[in-house]
Amino acid sequence: MWTEEYDCLIIATGARPLLPSVEGLGLKGIFPLRNIEHSQAIKAYIQNYQPRHAVVVGAGYIGLEMVENLLLYGCQVKIIEKAPHILPNMDPDLADHVHSYMQSKGIEILTDSSVTAFKGPEQVKEVVAGKGIFPADIVILAMGVLPNSGIAAQTGIALGAGGAIRVNERMETSQPDIYAAGDCATVKHLVSGQEVYIPMGTTANKQGRVAGENAAGGNTTLKGVLGTGISRIMELEVARTGLSEHECQILGIEYISQTIKSVTRAPYLPDSGSIYVKLIVEKTSHRLLGGQIVGYAGAGKRIDTIATALHTGSKIEDLYDLDLAYSPAFSILTDPVVIAINQFRSVMGGV
Amino acid sequence: MWTEEYDCLIIATGARPLLPSVEGLGLKGIFPLRNIEHSQAIKAYIQNYQPRHAVVVGAGYIGLEMVENLLLYGCQVKIIEKAPHILPNMDPDLADHVHSYMQSKGIEILTDSSVTAFKGPEQVKEVVAGKGIFPADIVILAMGVLPNSGIAAQTGIALGAGGAIRVNERMETSQPDIYAAGDCATVKHLVSGQEVYIPMGTTANKQGRVAGENAAGGNTTLKGVLGTGISRIMELEVARTGLSEHECQILGIEYISQTIKSVTRAPYLPDSGSIYVKLIVEKTSHRLLGGQIVGYAGAGKRIDTIATALHTGSKIEDLYDLDLAYSPAFSILTDPVVIAINQFRSVMGGV
Repeated sequence: MWTEEYDCLIIATGARPLLPSVEGLGLKGIFPLRNIEHSQAIKAYIQNYQPRHAVVVGAGYIGLEMVENLLLYGCQVKIIEKAPHILPNMDPDLADHVHSYMQSKGIEILTDSSVTAFKGPEQVKEVVAGKGIFPADIVILAMGVLPNSGIAAQTGIALGAGGAIRVNERMETSQPDIYAAGDCATVKHLVSGQEVYIPMGTTANKQGRVAGENAAGGNTTLKGVLGTGISRIMELEVARTGLSEHECQILGIEYISQTIKSVTRAPYLPDSGSIYVKLIVEKTSHRLLGGQIVGYAGAGKRIDTIATALHTGSKIEDLYDLDLAYSPAFSILTDPVVIAINQFRSVMGGV
Repeated sequence: MWTEEYDCLIIATGARPLLPSVEGLGLKGIFPLRNIEHSQAIKAYIQNYQPRHAVVVGAGYIGLEMVENLLLYGCQVKIIEKAPHILPNMDPDLADHVHSYMQSKGIEILTDSSVTAFKGPEQVKEVVAGKGIFPADIVILAMGVLPNSGIAAQTGIALGAGGAIRVNERMETSQPDIYAAGDCATVKHLVSGQEVYIPMGTTANKQGRVAGENAAGGNTTLKGVLGTGISRIMELEVARTGLSEHECQILGIEYISQTIKSVTRAPYLPDSGSIYVKLIVEKTSHRLLGGQIVGYAGAGKRIDTIATALHTGSKIEDLYDLDLAYSPAFSILTDPVVIAINQFRSVMGGV
């Protein structure tokens, strides 16, 4: 009995950086960025060699967050992204605002381009990408992560989306008494109902609790996640939740999207800044499917309002009169998220 | 036909400051604060007379927001509030954090005390309140507002909560073709279902749109509001939505409340600060009833998450796994609102 209660395993092997399989990857000055050791190594290299040209490969949150720090160290920064636009988990129209902003700060951005080689002799000196060769004294690899699911695969445990370990709502794998949780595991998307691989700390934390409770004899579940994410990119705040247009297209979901431009707080205040809010709604059911935000200080965490509405399965017309907090220091009279919601009145009809 | 379509009236007479009926109210240096003219008069008086002792009567949002400005002009500030605690629309436990904070900044606070007289000869010099007489070179009256419903009452239009003009979801008064909207009108509380008088710009804006559309031949409604409010009081952000404990008690609603203390963002960041989140849940139905927040920068607008959950009529157990945005600059891994929600797991049971 004692033995049986403890005869279970939780696989929490996490994820590892996705690295390009190209010539010159072993040169000095090329760093993945996944943990504190990586960041310490990057910092030490910058202090020792004072690189002039920095190249960031991958224009997701991690890559773009690195840019600010590289600028602060006096680097000229180039971003190389293989997708057609930066912030590939957002839609191009919203990502474009970030693109223009970063360009205005002197950052070069190369999209639709994969790195094909790094050139040394010993330390990295050049990056070959797309049709160009670019100077590079330091390279940050921020191309995303791969689940450490090898141990599971080798023992016959089923894998799922993104090659991660397939788990159900109780974090059970295909093998009895073996659980998985965190960046090595799949999760269900609450809006699409699909199995997805969206490795995030928030999800890992929730999955860990569920796996632990169930492994200890409890009975709890994680129904799913929304893939809510947020990032500060220099002065801009960027956030998303639920499905993007691109994801809707892949899933064959018919949708209507609306985007508004507004301000983060009363425009007569010195720290008021612009904010874009995009909402995506299912055409037939009127169900909210997702949202994206780009804007200045105070913009990003407004995504939580959208995430909460998604979590409760709200239809857009149920949200028209949302009573959000207003005072000039925090918002304009009608919160930008509610302005975005009300764009659907004319499209969906009133109530 | 033409005449009939336009034979309607929208009453939007607003509200006026509530003033104490006491001796000396007409002395110079005593100001209500309701509009721009008031604020200009206050500013001119301060510049002309450089008052040393300022007294603020009323410790709601407006009164407490004034304190910072009076301090900046070099005044010693005393607050006089007739309720047992400051911020009477919040519960005392949360308001106490603001009380302690303000005291630590040298502000004197007198609760449970009504002003009984102002003393001159010509300009105000003293305020009599409770059992004391206090020096006062300037007095700000921020005791709340009264609806300007006299015109309606005189013509036989029914009044409701707080003496405001009673309207239904279409903003119709008791008289056909006469609508009312804004600070002169009642509104329905979405959580209690009761008619209330909560004059706020957000509500006025929504009601104005509904009255206007219906008066112009449309057919639209405002289902109700949550009384969501927010204020910045020096460095603190204060917010509330839905029902407070006190309101639940008046309504005879059995509830459970939980309060947590957490931080606004990753504690290793310089701008991380403490945040208190209080949630109130109906005992039998498990329905979320209200929430209150006090904390440093980034705390206040988190009330919108709670307001959205209230708006959708969520039960607390439906919110346990809310997927809110995390990145160190914006939150700790589990957002403080979600930490507060999860306090109910042990009380309400898991799912």
